[in-house]
Amino acid sequence: MRSEPGNLKTVSKMSIKTDRDGTGHGHRQGDRLGEFQLIARYLAPLAKDPGAFGLKDDVCQLAVPDGQDLVISKDMLVSTIHFLPDDPPDLIAQKALRVNLSDLTAKGAAAAGYMLGLSLPDGWSEDWLGAFVEGLRRDGASFSHGLLGGDTVRSGSDRLTVSVTVFGFRSSGTILNRSSASAGDHLYVTGTIGEAALGLLLHMQKASGWQTALTSEDRRGLVHRYLLPQNRQSIHGLVCEFASASMDLSDGLIGDLQHICEASGLQASLDAQAIPLSGAARRACDADPACFEICLTGGDDYEVLFSVPDSRHAAFQAAIRSAPVPITRIGTLEDGVPSVSVLDADGEHLTWVSQSFSHF
Amino acid sequence: MRSEPGNLKTVSKMSIKTDRDGTGHGHRQGDRLGEFQLIARYLAPLAKDPGAFGLKDDVCQLAVPDGQDLVISKDMLVSTIHFLPDDPPDLIAQKALRVNLSDLTAKGAAAAGYMLGLSLPDGWSEDWLGAFVEGLRRDGASFSHGLLGGDTVRSGSDRLTVSVTVFGFRSSGTILNRSSASAGDHLYVTGTIGEAALGLLLHMQKASGWQTALTSEDRRGLVHRYLLPQNRQSIHGLVCEFASASMDLSDGLIGDLQHICEASGLQASLDAQAIPLSGAARRACDADPACFEICLTGGDDYEVLFSVPDSRHAAFQAAIRSAPVPITRIGTLEDGVPSVSVLDADGEHLTWVSQSFSHF
Repeated sequence: MRSEPGNLKTVSKMSIKTDRDGTGHGHRQGDRLGEFQLIARYLAPLAKDPGAFGLKDDVCQLAVPDGQDLVISKDMLVSTIHFLPDDPPDLIAQKALRVNLSDLTAKGAAAAGYMLGLSLPDGWSEDWLGAFVEGLRRDGASFSHGLLGGDTVRSGSDRLTVSVTVFGFRSSGTILNRSSASAGDHLYVTGTIGEAALGLLLHMQKASGWQTALTSEDRRGLVHRYLLPQNRQSIHGLVCEFASASMDLSDGLIGDLQHICEASGLQASLDAQAIPLSGAARRACDADPACFEICLTGGDDYEVLFSVPDSRHAAFQAAIRSAPVPITRIGTLEDGVPSVSVLDADGEHLTWVSQSFSHF
Repeated sequence: MRSEPGNLKTVSKMSIKTDRDGTGHGHRQGDRLGEFQLIARYLAPLAKDPGAFGLKDDVCQLAVPDGQDLVISKDMLVSTIHFLPDDPPDLIAQKALRVNLSDLTAKGAAAAGYMLGLSLPDGWSEDWLGAFVEGLRRDGASFSHGLLGGDTVRSGSDRLTVSVTVFGFRSSGTILNRSSASAGDHLYVTGTIGEAALGLLLHMQKASGWQTALTSEDRRGLVHRYLLPQNRQSIHGLVCEFASASMDLSDGLIGDLQHICEASGLQASLDAQAIPLSGAARRACDADPACFEICLTGGDDYEVLFSVPDSRHAAFQAAIRSAPVPITRIGTLEDGVPSVSVLDADGEHLTWVSQSFSHF
């Protein structure tokens, strides 16, 4: 006599459940690790904060320090939509954390903790889970309070869904949003732009002729950059101190900058030659100028784009000399119709082959 | 030239994205509402708190009042696993909120805000989404800050996944967990027990002969109770003030009480006749005594189970006279080997037909 016939389960949380075997088929024992053991063996070791209650309760607790604001972000990643099912599980885990971490960094917030929602596909294995958890362990170190809680369920299909909610702290005051830039502000980005977009084309085996101009190391590097965004959390303090507006780049430099322009009522002017490109991306652009458009409009950069007021510019330039991450000035914000212009070395406006992929 | 070939998308958050159409096929325009319009039309009206930034940013912000602790819970619901794909969308939304709300209530926390992760199945319709959002609107009223943010993605399959993270506040101090009960404490539950478990059997058309003893109204009521848990948030203050240990009932009264027994190192003794049953559940149990076991071991009650110290018992009994929810004393906690006993009117221990579904 079982009150849950068929496949239907009650909602089980990431707490120790001794009456679930995680298969959704009642109490069948056998080859598959149950939710109880799964959590105890793989996830509880990541949850060392007292507020996580060892993942043995239905809730967690997070104390927000006096004078700090709580900043929250939540991103879901689904296999075949946001990554390929066969991508390395540790990199999937790290990507799921980093796409959220980059939101915190962009808001000048220090990463405090995260919650993990994991919907496991049919046929998941302990090997897969072990590698996934190793990815969490690596980037979980960026969070002062680590893993706080979450939920583990079966997806009942071949799809994996990873739903991460992250918590950060920043000094109380006005949040750093997209609308607080001013005319005369300088535009900066961290790291390099466009590698992930090129890497995705290579990863999907949809790259055109330009790939032949690359070394195999170039290609591996670009794909890796798609699989695993950089972790820029180390500069959250700089962003908090100097930025007037900020966001992370998930949908491409041009499109995301357009959001800042619209929210702030300003016009952006970018210097094409200043856009930071890696050696591999530069070689791709040299082989096929169309790659430059891919770099500027493609997604998955997860770098931080922010503006710095002119009045703080000298101090900021001094501060970034010792920054642990390359930070590059790429243009300015000015009064004007909200839009993004990219100027080449001759001061000519660049236009794109296909306007349909740029909405300005 | 598009940097996202095939089905792969960058991670798009619940913020306004003008360069996504939500179909995962680039900028194809047509019959399907894009993520931009989806959020603006359906979700942004639920996000009135200033900290939600109108769902136009990548993060949200929540100020935790001085002297309050932040309590967080996260539950994922997947279609065919936790509900049926054809269940009414408004009830799916309300259930997704209520299974989380009941965690906050059980911790004596006032519901402050929630984030929504929505992974939409192939073939979702605006009608479906409109009804789903109506469900959010109804129970979102329980949250002082409403919808704060989240993420909307495509599942790339026929599965809907709803991932909700809720935030609550409670007076600073020791969290109400499962381990803080003492010998002599009185055990209480809110509402009635077992209807959802019986309702699930009816909903799955797997109920045995006992269903013929029920009226059609009984059957509808039981199924509805499975589809939609009660919202017990109104008694979070009582729980906060009087409970020594507390949890919500998601996996069945006996199994969940066993968690409190194990965490607190105590033995529970329940009075079978005191277990609160609805009229419909009582009629089912009268028709087939096996239904009583279903009621006590089945899941999805989402009532609150808590212990009250004997020293506070008189004050608690006075306080619940005006409680907006029925609250029933069902037994006591005593020193002993952690276990749950259920005694009938003659003081005899009840045993279950199938021990395999009770793990004590």
